[in-house]
Amino acid sequence: MPVLNSLDALIEALKRLPGVGQKSAQRMAYHLLQHDRLAMPRLADALTAAGENIKHCERCHTFSEAPICGVCADVERDARLLCVVETPADQAALERTASYRGYYFVLLGRLSPLDGIGTRQIGAAELLARAAEESVEEVILATSFTAEGEATAHVLAEALKARGIKSTRLARGVPVGSELEYVDLGTIAHALTDRR
Amino acid sequence: MPVLNSLDALIEALKRLPGVGQKSAQRMAYHLLQHDRLAMPRLADALTAAGENIKHCERCHTFSEAPICGVCADVERDARLLCVVETPADQAALERTASYRGYYFVLLGRLSPLDGIGTRQIGAAELLARAAEESVEEVILATSFTAEGEATAHVLAEALKARGIKSTRLARGVPVGSELEYVDLGTIAHALTDRR
Repeated sequence: MPVLNSLDALIEALKRLPGVGQKSAQRMAYHLLQHDRLAMPRLADALTAAGENIKHCERCHTFSEAPICGVCADVERDARLLCVVETPADQAALERTASYRGYYFVLLGRLSPLDGIGTRQIGAAELLARAAEESVEEVILATSFTAEGEATAHVLAEALKARGIKSTRLARGVPVGSELEYVDLGTIAHALTDRR
Repeated sequence: MPVLNSLDALIEALKRLPGVGQKSAQRMAYHLLQHDRLAMPRLADALTAAGENIKHCERCHTFSEAPICGVCADVERDARLLCVVETPADQAALERTASYRGYYFVLLGRLSPLDGIGTRQIGAAELLARAAEESVEEVILATSFTAEGEATAHVLAEALKARGIKSTRLARGVPVGSELEYVDLGTIAHALTDRR
């Protein structure tokens, strides 16, 4: 087989993308080279620009090009609400719902003692200081409904409670558009308990 | 939602990759930014290097960093055989089988009159000149077994026949490892006709 160093290097680099294995990376590389050469410098430039420009917001820790992100800089938002999420992607998903008008705090992770991720790594002290600000009336814990996400929410809720700060958790229940028959039993049980 | 120009630009650029939609592109961008920043300059450099270095082999038209690719430059190969494939990816697949030792000619496409791809675009004249070289005894038409691939093989076979050059087609039949029950009927019919 011909040794194409640049091609092999491109395939290896593409394999670093999540969900991209050897076959997909080959397909992507061949596609770009044969059908979309213009996309190559464009993607290269976008990667370089994103890597250089995108930092974390000093206030909520989400991705931001400015020291303070657009949400934190928006004085029109409801300062009584503070929503805690694991990742900038989670925050973006919440924003897309257009049903939340408060501020955010992004943990950039979740408690996972086995991986060495404790309260310090998720910035718990900073979150507690933020939640103690006078304007904040409610902290919404929107971490994932996984074992680690639940544990994170539990630890944070306890710490907030000890400081007399009210915290809530996103509702668990049947997803919109789903048929009961195909929903897992744990979810149905929760939806039953939390019925309203 | 915060306007993150670099992030949006990165997501848009990632969407140009085949098989990557809005959701996958978002996931890739967030993954790179949060967990694998080092992969970003690496992929950017690989894209730039590949775009600049990878040209087409002057002889067989496959991807090559040198004017003549590794296969064409290999004098140990069997000069009696010339295998015609649609794409460099097809050629790479054939090379990986390690069961072909001849040379290649890559069409970089297939006949598709509706898309304006005729014999000129696939370099048919160049292929015929190459096939007419004294050493060549057999042209193996390894275009896809799709309607367009079959049409391409048919047109090339006719042109080769008119010049007195022998051409063969890859065998059609039941794929290795498959159970007959799940093979499509057209394939079984062909395998029956071509039984040996």
